[in-house]
Amino acid sequence: MGEVDSAPRTRTRQVRVGGVPIGGGAPVAVQSMTTTPTRDPEATLAQISELAEEGCEIARVAIPDAASLEGFATVCAASPLPVVADIHFDHHLAIEACRRGAAALRVNPGNIGSWDRVDAVIDAAKEAGIPIRIGVNAGSLARDVEARADLTHAEKLVESAVSFVRHFAERGFLDVVVSAKTHSAMETVEVNRLLSRALPEVPLHLGVTEAGDFSQATVKNSVALGILLSEGIGDTVRVSITAPPADEVRVAWQILAATGVRQRGPEIVSCPTCARCSIDLMALEDEVARRLREVRAPLCVAVMGCEVNGPGEARAADIGIAGGHGHCILFAGGEIIATVDQSEAVDALMAQIDARFPE
Amino acid sequence: MGEVDSAPRTRTRQVRVGGVPIGGGAPVAVQSMTTTPTRDPEATLAQISELAEEGCEIARVAIPDAASLEGFATVCAASPLPVVADIHFDHHLAIEACRRGAAALRVNPGNIGSWDRVDAVIDAAKEAGIPIRIGVNAGSLARDVEARADLTHAEKLVESAVSFVRHFAERGFLDVVVSAKTHSAMETVEVNRLLSRALPEVPLHLGVTEAGDFSQATVKNSVALGILLSEGIGDTVRVSITAPPADEVRVAWQILAATGVRQRGPEIVSCPTCARCSIDLMALEDEVARRLREVRAPLCVAVMGCEVNGPGEARAADIGIAGGHGHCILFAGGEIIATVDQSEAVDALMAQIDARFPE
Repeated sequence: MGEVDSAPRTRTRQVRVGGVPIGGGAPVAVQSMTTTPTRDPEATLAQISELAEEGCEIARVAIPDAASLEGFATVCAASPLPVVADIHFDHHLAIEACRRGAAALRVNPGNIGSWDRVDAVIDAAKEAGIPIRIGVNAGSLARDVEARADLTHAEKLVESAVSFVRHFAERGFLDVVVSAKTHSAMETVEVNRLLSRALPEVPLHLGVTEAGDFSQATVKNSVALGILLSEGIGDTVRVSITAPPADEVRVAWQILAATGVRQRGPEIVSCPTCARCSIDLMALEDEVARRLREVRAPLCVAVMGCEVNGPGEARAADIGIAGGHGHCILFAGGEIIATVDQSEAVDALMAQIDARFPE
Repeated sequence: MGEVDSAPRTRTRQVRVGGVPIGGGAPVAVQSMTTTPTRDPEATLAQISELAEEGCEIARVAIPDAASLEGFATVCAASPLPVVADIHFDHHLAIEACRRGAAALRVNPGNIGSWDRVDAVIDAAKEAGIPIRIGVNAGSLARDVEARADLTHAEKLVESAVSFVRHFAERGFLDVVVSAKTHSAMETVEVNRLLSRALPEVPLHLGVTEAGDFSQATVKNSVALGILLSEGIGDTVRVSITAPPADEVRVAWQILAATGVRQRGPEIVSCPTCARCSIDLMALEDEVARRLREVRAPLCVAVMGCEVNGPGEARAADIGIAGGHGHCILFAGGEIIATVDQSEAVDALMAQIDARFPE
């Protein structure tokens, strides 16, 4: 597939969120978060199923108030994915979530209010036998760290995370994952490089937060996660996009594939079209992408605008299709294997894929 | 803005494409390519104007045949951007393009056919006083290099580019930019790292080619260009997407902004929404994005779903808006500056931006 090996994953202590291992050499796990009201378990479960279908492996669900706890319990009982309870401010909700089937907690200790309350959460998670993701962001720094003028914002995030992990360890709780998120891609890179050195044994959850609309969020997450994953930093990812969460999962997988870390299903390569292109390439590519959703093999499939450059430029593809004048060619390994009418091109491509790469 | 400094640009020899400097410490220039038929100069010029509006600085136009030369000349004469002639296979077309107003040539010497023909192109560019981008990709390796079994594909691309640059230099032509493109993000990274070491004085044009649909192409280009630009590698970029070329330009700018290399206009940070969100954040964000197109200042504007987390998590933003129940709050520097009705929120935000950040 022409991918070079990425850096080896940093070896961290392994944590399990339900059946999904994180860190310790496990595949980088893909997470997302529901946007439905948690007090509506049917809607939330429907969204989790949609996320699972796209390859999501862990679902996070917010518990904004006590009225959401019953819905949360229903979701946990029926969810096809392990469910992480996301709680801000109110430690009672975190404790209750542990008793209602959460596979993990996500709390920002910096906004829980006091160490006593944080300790009550730690003890509840310990009793339930579930891990805690310790989150830090600009709004949830450790109080004593926040005031320090000698630290940059990135250093404050790292120092906060380190102080929280140390506190959890002193309480006898090692089952933690750490995330430190900002809306800046390069600050996210800096913070996680520092964290991976300061806490080499702790699995890191990567993501750029408040990243913006689909295009900008995809760029920021790809830049930050691309740099970090290629350096072997990061054990699980959640791409934040102001868009339906299924989009987050698709982009997360595309980042893992682009960095050579993991691949799920076929990859399509297609040319950007130019004045040489004599077919409606975008429509053809959409159609190929739609049909390839049935295929699970990690193939590289080329969809090219012209038969002149197509087969040569895409010779690294396992199989490909290129437009001509009134017809299309199919090629494999840079060689033409068939010439077909445009209307039959996608059917012919799929038949070749079925024949050459049986599941 | 919370961005950390990226690595300093590698110092390369400066080349000028029309009025746009490339390399030698110049800002990383944004390019794209027209998809209209070049023999239709009105359509091509309209697309170039659209690209310029989005911040494109150099437009590339394919010349697939002799019938396109007249249209190409018309485009060059009227284009608001310098126009690069893109030519494959036929060296006569390249020579003619030099005489018809091309601000630069892009040729892949590996598909021109012979050194004599390449030399004729070099001489025509020299006479016209324009630079040449030397492109290499899987379909245009140097013939003697292509056959070598001792090299990886990435090494073949580098070896081809080096042999072409050496040949151009022996012909007395130093006014070159080099690009080596593949459809793999990590191979693009590897090739350009090798090129920046092998040809430290030659400006590099970065891009991932045949990158796929909007989402996948944005991911691949962001991963590859993010890693390279953060290492100080790359002097001009073209993001290839199977989508309208204006999209390529927007994504290119988003990559430059995310890597801290260049910024154009405001940046929006927005949360991914969750069960705490009580407003239609995607609609609000779309509206803010639309209105911000008038603003040129490099502001950071936050659009957050809830008034509880919003101002704190987005305190690094210059100004922001967060949804409440029936109202919105405006905040700056983490402090609330106004509470307004939701229907007036965007107007109020824009008024604050006008007052606080006059152009």
